Order: sequence, then C-alpha cells, then structure tokens
Amino acid sequence: MDFLKVISTAKAKDLISEVFKDYKIDTESVNILSSVGRVLSEDIHAIYDVPNFNRSTVDGYAVKSKDTFGCSDFIPSLLEYKGAVQMGETAFGVVNTSETIYVPTGGMVPDGADAVVMIEYTDKLDESTVAINKAVRPGENVTYKGDDIKEGSVVLKKGRKITAQDIGVLASLSISSVNVYKKPRVTIISTGDEIVDITEKEENCKVKDINGYVLYALVEKSSCEVVNKLIVNDDFNKLKATIEEAIKTSDLVLLSGGSSVGTKDFTYDIINSLNGRGVFINGLAIKPGKPTIVGEAEGKPIFGLPGHPVSAITVYKILVDHLICEMLSIEDDMLSVDAILETNLHSSPGKETYQLVDLIEKENDKIAVPIYGASGLITTLAKAKGYIVISDNTEGIYKGEKVKVYIN
Amino acid sequence: MDFLKVISTAKAKDLISEVFKDYKIDTESVNILSSVGRVLSEDIHAIYDVPNFNRSTVDGYAVKSKDTFGCSDFIPSLLEYKGAVQMGETAFGVVNTSETIYVPTGGMVPDGADAVVMIEYTDKLDESTVAINKAVRPGENVTYKGDDIKEGSVVLKKGRKITAQDIGVLASLSISSVNVYKKPRVTIISTGDEIVDITEKEENCKVKDINGYVLYALVEKSSCEVVNKLIVNDDFNKLKATIEEAIKTSDLVLLSGGSSVGTKDFTYDIINSLNGRGVFINGLAIKPGKPTIVGEAEGKPIFGLPGHPVSAITVYKILVDHLICEMLSIEDDMLSVDAILETNLHSSPGKETYQLVDLIEKENDKIAVPIYGASGLITTLAKAKGYIVISDNTEGIYKGEKVKVYIN
Repeated sequence: MDFLKVISTAKAKDLISEVFKDYKIDTESVNILSSVGRVLSEDIHAIYDVPNFNRSTVDGYAVKSKDTFGCSDFIPSLLEYKGAVQMGETAFGVVNTSETIYVPTGGMVPDGADAVVMIEYTDKLDESTVAINKAVRPGENVTYKGDDIKEGSVVLKKGRKITAQDIGVLASLSISSVNVYKKPRVTIISTGDEIVDITEKEENCKVKDINGYVLYALVEKSSCEVVNKLIVNDDFNKLKATIEEAIKTSDLVLLSGGSSVGTKDFTYDIINSLNGRGVFINGLAIKPGKPTIVGEAEGKPIFGLPGHPVSAITVYKILVDHLICEMLSIEDDMLSVDAILETNLHSSPGKETYQLVDLIEKENDKIAVPIYGASGLITTLAKAKGYIVISDNTEGIYKGEKVKVYIN
Repeated sequence: MDFLKVISTAKAKDLISEVFKDYKIDTESVNILSSVGRVLSEDIHAIYDVPNFNRSTVDGYAVKSKDTFGCSDFIPSLLEYKGAVQMGETAFGVVNTSETIYVPTGGMVPDGADAVVMIEYTDKLDESTVAINKAVRPGENVTYKGDDIKEGSVVLKKGRKITAQDIGVLASLSISSVNVYKKPRVTIISTGDEIVDITEKEENCKVKDINGYVLYALVEKSSCEVVNKLIVNDDFNKLKATIEEAIKTSDLVLLSGGSSVGTKDFTYDIINSLNGRGVFINGLAIKPGKPTIVGEAEGKPIFGLPGHPVSAITVYKILVDHLICEMLSIEDDMLSVDAILETNLHSSPGKETYQLVDLIEKENDKIAVPIYGASGLITTLAKAKGYIVISDNTEGIYKGEKVKVYIN
C-alpha cells in the first residue's frame, strides 16, 4: 500500500531539494536598520579598505620606532614636538627622525611614523620637546590601512542571515542598504471539522486550532511572511478551492491535521488532483511525525503536516525549514550544544526519533533531561530547550552518553 | 584620581540593579500572533484543564482494558460494537463490560472505557461485533483530562520572553492576547567632532558612526525600541541639551565615543551637571571596555559606552542587557556552549577579559577559536559566534581546557 512507503528524513530532504531546486524567490533592497534577520541575496564586497588610513589605537605620540629603542624612565629619548593631529582630520605633516606628532585614539598616524607611544609613557617637557620613556616595536599601537577589511574582499556572503553585529560591518563600509531575499509567502491551513479558532466559544469537544498559531510564529521566525491563516472543514471542494487560491498567492502552503489515516482525509487526493507532480513523499520514518505528506502543484510546495502540535513542529523544523533554507541559499547551521543524557532513551530501529529535552547545568556539565508525553502534550513544547535525534539504526541511547542538543 | 577607580563587572551590575530597582516599565496587551520576543508582565494561569476531556491518541476502539487481557490473534476477544464517536463531538454513550465504541485520534473516550485498542489490532467482523487481537493496559492510548495542563497552574511565568512554541501553549488555553511590558525606549547618541553618518560623503579622516548602527540593532534585539539615533559633536551645551531631551523621551540613554580620556570628553561632566545621582560607575575592570561610565539623571540610566565598536558591544551585553533584563523581570539565561580552547589565551590579572571566538566542529568536539584583533577591528564582530570570559584572578587559560562560550 502506497501510504506505508515511509522514507527517511535524509531521503525526504534530498527529494524536496531536487523537486524545488529551480524555485526562485525575488529580492528587494532594505535599509540596514531593518535588515536584521533578513537573508542576503548577494555577496557584500568591501568598496574600500577599512580603516582607510593608518590609525592610532591609543592617545599618544607618533614616532619612528627606532628613535625609541633603548629608552627608559632613566634614559628618555628626547624628540622634537611638531604639533597634534586632530580627530577626523588628515595628518598635517611628516614625522622625520627625532621628531614626533601627537595623535589621539582613532586619529591618523602621520607619514614617516611607524608606531605610537602611549601618552602615559611620555612627558611633554616644553613647547617643542617630548620625552619618550618606553620603547615601542614597529607597528605598535597602529592599525594599518586595510588591516580590518581589504578593498574588494567578500565581507558577508550571499545566504547570510544578517545579525546585529553584521550591521557594524556594513556601516563600516558606508553601506546603508542591502539586497535581501523577499520573505517567502506562506499560507497556513488547518483542516478538520473538529477544528475551531481559539477565539470561538468552546463547543462540545471541538479541538482548538493550536497548529495555526504555532506555525504562524515558526514561519515568521524562519524569515517568512504569513499571507493567510485559515481553518477549512472536511469538504473536498472547499479545501481544494482554498489550496488552489493559496498556491496563487504563496510560495509555500502548509496544511495540518489532514494527513492522519482517517475517514475524512482529502489532502492526499486534492494534491494529486492539481496540476503538477502531486504527492511525492507520503510518510516519514520518524517519531513523531510519521503521517506527513509533501507534494508539488503549479511548481509550489505543499506540506501536509501531522495534526499533533509537537509532531507538526518537528516536521516543520526538519523539512519546511530545510526547504526555506534552500530557497534563500541559507547555510543550514543549526546551533547545537553537547550535553550528557540523564536517562536511558529507547527508540524504534528503522525510525529516527526526535526527543524533546530540557537542558540543566550540573557541576559544570550540561545535562539533557528528556521531556516525556504523548506527542499531543502541548506543555512539552514550552519546557523544551531543544531536541536530540536518535538515529534509525540504533535501539536507543544510554544514560551518561554524550548527545547533541539542537536548540529551539 | 576618581577616573581610575575601575570596578568589576559583578560590582557594576549590582550597583546598576540597586540604583534602578524601582524603575517601572508600563505594560500593554498584544495579540499572541505579534507577541513572539515580547516579555510577559504577568504569570499566565490555565483557566481550564488541557485536554478538557479524556482523549484518544490513536484511531481505534475504546474498551475496558480488562476485557482485552489475554487476547491475541489466535484467541481474539469479541466485543459488542455500539457505534463511533465523531471528532469534535461529545461521546454519545457508555462502554460497559464486553462493549466497544470506535474513537478517532483526538476524539473523546467514552465513559466506562479506560483504554483504546489501535485499529490495526482489531477486525470488524460484522455490524455489531469487533474482534480485539491485542491486550491493552489501563490508560493505554488515552490522554486524560488535565494531563497536559491542570486548571489554575502557572503555564508561563512573568518575565518570560515569548517563544514560537509558547504561542502553542497560549493557543491551547484559548488565550488570544497577553499582557507584556512595553518596549523600553532608548535614545542612541554618538559623540565626537570626528563622527559622521555613513550616508555622508567621506571627508578627510572622519570616522563612520558604526556604533549608532550596531547599537540600534542590539537594542531592537533586546526587545527595546529606538526612539532616536543621533550624532552630536563636541559642544558641551549642545550635547547637554540633547541628553536632557533624550531623558524626557526615553527609558535609557546610550552614549558612545565620549568616554575615552580625551581633551574633548564632556560626557562625565554633563551627567554630573544634571538632576540626579550623576556618574556612579567610572571605569570597568574589563578588557575591552574599560572606559565605560554609568550615571543616573531624573531617575533615568545613562550609559557612556566606549568608542570602539567591539568594546561598546561588549559593555552593552554585560551592563545594558543586564539592566534591561532587570527592568523587564527577565531571567538572565544566556545560552552557553561548552567547547575546547584551541590556543593558550593570556589575560591581565585584575581585569576580566572578554575574548571573541569562533566555534568549529572537529571530531565530534566543539573547538573555540579566538579571533584576534585590536578592539576596533570590526570584522571580528561578524566572524565571532560568541565569547568567553577569562576571570580577573587568573593569568589566562591553556590550550585544551574546557571553556564556556556565550552565544551572540
């Protein structure tokens, strides 16, 4: 039976990459002040050296270093004072042998000088004489032109998710706007007669649309934009029309709740009835998250995520985030932390197991504490700092073993 | 000389906490869909049990578990079929001894039943008979009312920075809006005649306002709002008027560039000339970041951060973020990663040293690779994954030692 041909997550990622490898996301220019978290659509090159002049790192006297060799508190080197460089101004003169010019921190080191002596190690004896009490090495207290960034070099790469620190790099190059990928547009559809929005009055045993809200938050965290968040009941034609409309307005369509084996499951049939390759992944060899389907219609990806929130989030992180990273050229660099497993963990051979864990500090070690609960237990979500992956060719991990915890 | 009375970061944090312990940030109500990254200003209690009925975790037959004891493929237990519970509907009947009712995944388990047998282990023999081929334990495949969240319990605490996952917890409790702290308002002022905005044409050796941009990004990352970002040259009255205005419109004022010992340093005098306690921290025993001042005027905190970007960011993360966490009741839980130090690292006893590092994976270990450069070198910022702290009572850390890397 086709439905039981579950595949590994590695195989699923490869298939998704292959099917959508030519999908293009447009780009746009944004001011760097609103660019944090956005993804660069091109390499950023330095258009000049940084710094673009030789800069003093201290308040002090610019000198030829050989003029200071051997000097000390007792045998100072006496140099001729030729004036002071002003901050932000071009140095006015040249330092010749036995001469010195004062330079403030960040100021330009004059030609001729190859080092700066900190003011603490000098005495200004009179209007034209400075005593140097400490020797400096060539280059000491000087940052040379281009030391920081060389003209023409790549400072930030295409696919980089811009950080607060990167803003400093861009500012240092006078780059006030950058080209980034537009946020991929996502439609989120929760399916099922039993699903009601959380703002509706509780009716019998209706199920609150938790996935719609969690997926909304995850989509925004993935540098995407939610164009619509909907609940559609189990009506084939209505769901089909909704998916067709979503395909037109979105880059990705996320369905949830409709992928369990159930009497009211239309998702599979609808995706196959649309114009495209249809469903190409039907079931994942993972726990939780098995009842997952992935299809293509009109060139757009459609994910059918499990109905249980923890399962839906797990599959979102493995497959949906993978596709978004591919679309935006993001290097997948999920942060992980090494920790010691607190208890034995069993798993089912043949299935990759994703286990939510809390992380606690104990005697200078990090301990990974599994959070148990049926996959529908929503509290596990908030308690978990991250998760560990138990590979499909093992029966579990023993207490005390080192594990990699992927951070939420 | 007062200026040289540097203090430790621990002492500085304590002083800041003490001086601003009564500072209040207002609260506001926001929709949960725009609450990620905001900070809860009150505990969130469960107003009902989750789930609020006994729920099946599988598609299958609700039974009295004792009716299944001892059964198998060869000796099935034959039960009377009484109908099917619909998703989202209240169970219509009671399961008595030798009876069964079908329940879908997520459906309500009828009274009388204490377990559900997965459909895979059953055969529907005719309209009124189901054969059970596998025994179930009491409670098997059932999530009981309140198993997930107990009515009245605290599910998310005041001071919690709301995550995508938390949105699921709130949604499961039908909470569509929450009370959060307003974003603290921050004015950022870069000082110095040599500072020009990055959009200005390069003039002589003017210094680009890198700090203004980096601090803007960091402030937003700290759940705060920038009300103004300014450059003010070295004019005592103009800077004083700007700070006075900033105090009126902001919860925090961040100055940078004006704290070095220099001829044009007015920050110290201005803060002391305002109505309040004035400067109470003047110099930190850390590297980089020594020339830091912190003061209070009109009840508001004023930070004078170092001019070098790496120093300014370091002090921001240690002191400014500390104060923001205190103002918003955030538990300071900076993520850290254990790693092996790649090279010996020297430090100055008496000073805490903050060393930026990259993190690389090598043979299943994480290696912390120090990124060197004068504190002004802006490229170090983008390369660093985090930093390590070398305590003030050591001369350094040896290659191969375990270090804690705080993630940016």
